[in-house]
Parts: sequence; C-alpha cells; structure tokens
Amino acid sequence: MAEKAVVLLSGGLDSATVLAIAKTQGYEVYALTVDYGQRHGREIDCARSQGRAQQVTEHRIIRVELPSKHSSVLTGPGDVPTAQPHLPTPTIPPTYVPARNTILLSLALAWAESLGAEDIFIGATAVDYSGYPDCRGAFIEAFENLANLATKAATQDGKKFHIHAPLLHLPKHKIIKRGKELGVDFAQTSSCYDPDERGRACGRCDSCALRLKGFKQAGLTDPLQYA
Amino acid sequence: MAEKAVVLLSGGLDSATVLAIAKTQGYEVYALTVDYGQRHGREIDCARSQGRAQQVTEHRIIRVELPSKHSSVLTGPGDVPTAQPHLPTPTIPPTYVPARNTILLSLALAWAESLGAEDIFIGATAVDYSGYPDCRGAFIEAFENLANLATKAATQDGKKFHIHAPLLHLPKHKIIKRGKELGVDFAQTSSCYDPDERGRACGRCDSCALRLKGFKQAGLTDPLQYA
Repeated sequence: MAEKAVVLLSGGLDSATVLAIAKTQGYEVYALTVDYGQRHGREIDCARSQGRAQQVTEHRIIRVELPSKHSSVLTGPGDVPTAQPHLPTPTIPPTYVPARNTILLSLALAWAESLGAEDIFIGATAVDYSGYPDCRGAFIEAFENLANLATKAATQDGKKFHIHAPLLHLPKHKIIKRGKELGVDFAQTSSCYDPDERGRACGRCDSCALRLKGFKQAGLTDPLQYA
Repeated sequence: MAEKAVVLLSGGLDSATVLAIAKTQGYEVYALTVDYGQRHGREIDCARSQGRAQQVTEHRIIRVELPSKHSSVLTGPGDVPTAQPHLPTPTIPPTYVPARNTILLSLALAWAESLGAEDIFIGATAVDYSGYPDCRGAFIEAFENLANLATKAATQDGKKFHIHAPLLHLPKHKIIKRGKELGVDFAQTSSCYDPDERGRACGRCDSCALRLKGFKQAGLTDPLQYA
C-alpha cells in the first residue's frame, strides 16, 4: 500500500509541481490548502483545480484567521510593490507574512499525524525567491526537528516525520521544466500577489516577475492571461 | 515603556496564572485565545473573563479549523476517559490533540512578530500533566530555535524570540499557590475536558483530577462548581 503524504497546496506553480513530484514518488496524496485571508484568493480556485486534476486522495481547504493580518500587504492594507530588478532584495519585502510557513507546516503536521503519515511536502524555494526566512533549508530542518519532538506519533509510536522541500535548491526555470515534464497544467496555477477582480495576474509584482523570467529561461510560454 | 508579550490564554488555570506572572514581570500583555473547536468551549468564556480581569492591553480570540479534528476526543467524537490513578500514564491519552501547541505557538509567533514583541508565554507544564509531548522543555526549546530562524524579525531586524514556560517544572499545587498569591480568580478558569451543558466541570477526567488534587495539596478550596 502506498505511503500517505500531506502536500501543502497553495495553488501556485511551485506547490502544483511539488504535488506532481509527490505523486511520481508513489505517495498517496492528501492535499492541504490554507485560506488565511490572502488577497490573491484566485490561488484557492487553482488549488482546487490542481487537487482534482492530479487526483489527490483527499483535499482539505481550511480557514485560519491570522492575528497578524494587518502586517503584510498580502493579507492587510497597503500596496503590493512592483517587482525589484534583483531578487531576493537586500531587505525582506512587505509581502512577507509573519510566520506563515510555520503555521502552514503546523497544520500539515497535525493532519499528517492524524492520518498516520510521516511525510509532508512543501513548495519552499530559496533560489529565485523573495528572501523569506521561512523558505530556507535551515528553517525546514528546524521544523522537522520540532515535529519529531512535538507529536505523539514521533515520541511514542516510532514514527519519524520528514519535511520534503524538493524545490529548495532549484531555480524557477528548472521548477517550471520539471512541472511541465510531469504534466502540470500551469494554466491552473496562480502566482500573482495582486490579481485583478477577474483573477488575472498583474505581471508587475515580485511573484509575477519571477514567474515570467522562469518561463522565459525555460523556453516555454506562460499560459496565463495577464491584465 | 513596557515590553510587549503575547500570552497564550486558554482559560484554564495554568494560562491564567501565566498571564498574571507576565503582568508581574512588567510586560504589556497581548492575550491570544485560539478556538480550535474544543468541546470544552467554556474555556473561551473564562479566557475572556481573565483577559478583562487582568487588564490585558488587547485580547484576540481567533478561530482555527483543525484538519485533524476527528483524531482527538477533545475536538471530535469519542468519550473523554475518566482519570487514571497515576498521571502521566504510560501511553499518551486520547485527549491529545495532534500538534496543538505547535499550532498555538505558531499563531502566537505571528502576532508577536507583527507587534514587535519578542516574548511569548505558554502555560505548558510537565509535572502534573497528561504526558503530552508538546508540553516538555525539549519541545519549547525546539520551538524557540525555530522561531529565530522562521521570522523576518529575528533574521533581519535583530530581534530574539523567547518562549517562556514559567510553569514547566512546577507541580499543580505550586501553580495554584502562585496564582492565588497573584490574585488570579480561579472561579473564572475552566480545566474540565468535558463540562456539562451548563459549563460545570465533570470532576472525573484527567484534567479535573489533576486540578482537584492540586487544590487539595495546596490546602485551598477549588471555587468551581462540579456537576
């Protein structure tokens, strides 16, 4: 019987690719999408499409109210900045969401434990990225260490949690190539921090810039419609 | 100006005492209560009373949907067991909630970061307790380590997070004595895992048993009404 894995699925191209990687590795996938009030709600629709298209065993979309929602432009007031010419920038941009990946991994851990799964996948990447501290290898390792101290499964039942971040050291164009090889439908992914009311990507934010550059370097056409 | 601290406030006697300790240490307190669907909803009312009585600067009560809610008797189906004669028991009881303290601390960390606070208080205790892995010192240390890798505040802005668990090594009767000294109103705390529809404690679960034993050893009377 296949091993179960929880895959954090945001609806972006990274997590859609990670889901395909987990499937390729033979896992029975339980996809978890967290609606934390992000302004790019289009992501949630894409996550739903990916879960269906990639035939996950179960897809949960849960709502979490962030106590810190006013301090990121992704969840509160303020404008999403236009892309910086070089990323990561010397300072972490205002699109940073406090402790986001810690919260996401905690919820994934809770579900994994209750499913009897030991494997959790996250689409963190630390090459073409915005310099977020919770996308780095040291963070992923520290969370894995925590998971193995925090849970009944690990401390009593002999389980060992692994946090898989298979994109960590890949530049964006290689992520896109990998996703393409695995048949990911990139038309059903959303990367933009600030889509318009029809869900179209702005083409101007850091996340759009990284995506567009990635497609270009990969020699592929981005199927998204930009505003 | 006083330093800010986030205090996780469940409404139980431990966290009510921790709140009083944080106040005594001079912190400006931001209390965080997480409604994760626990059947002991009476706790939330008590948390509200404690926040008011102890004059916190701000009290947030947030809702989080647990993907693992069916796997603990505190959030899903199944009976809360009656107290075991010796606690902690050799195996972790079904009242364990997967990754609960990891989730609570993650949310507290997000709020602390957005407030510019470095201090987070939690009422974890590892003496008279149910053997939950996420109430032990090693877990608290691992979370503190994670917090200092996970956040912009710590990795860019020179902040250093401290997770305070001032009750960690105290037996229940000493916690009760300390709370009493600090003027905590224990009538406005709830420990029971399975209160009746009027909010009265059952007197039979592990948590009631630890509380009742603690009051007895402290030579004090528990002001609660039991069913």
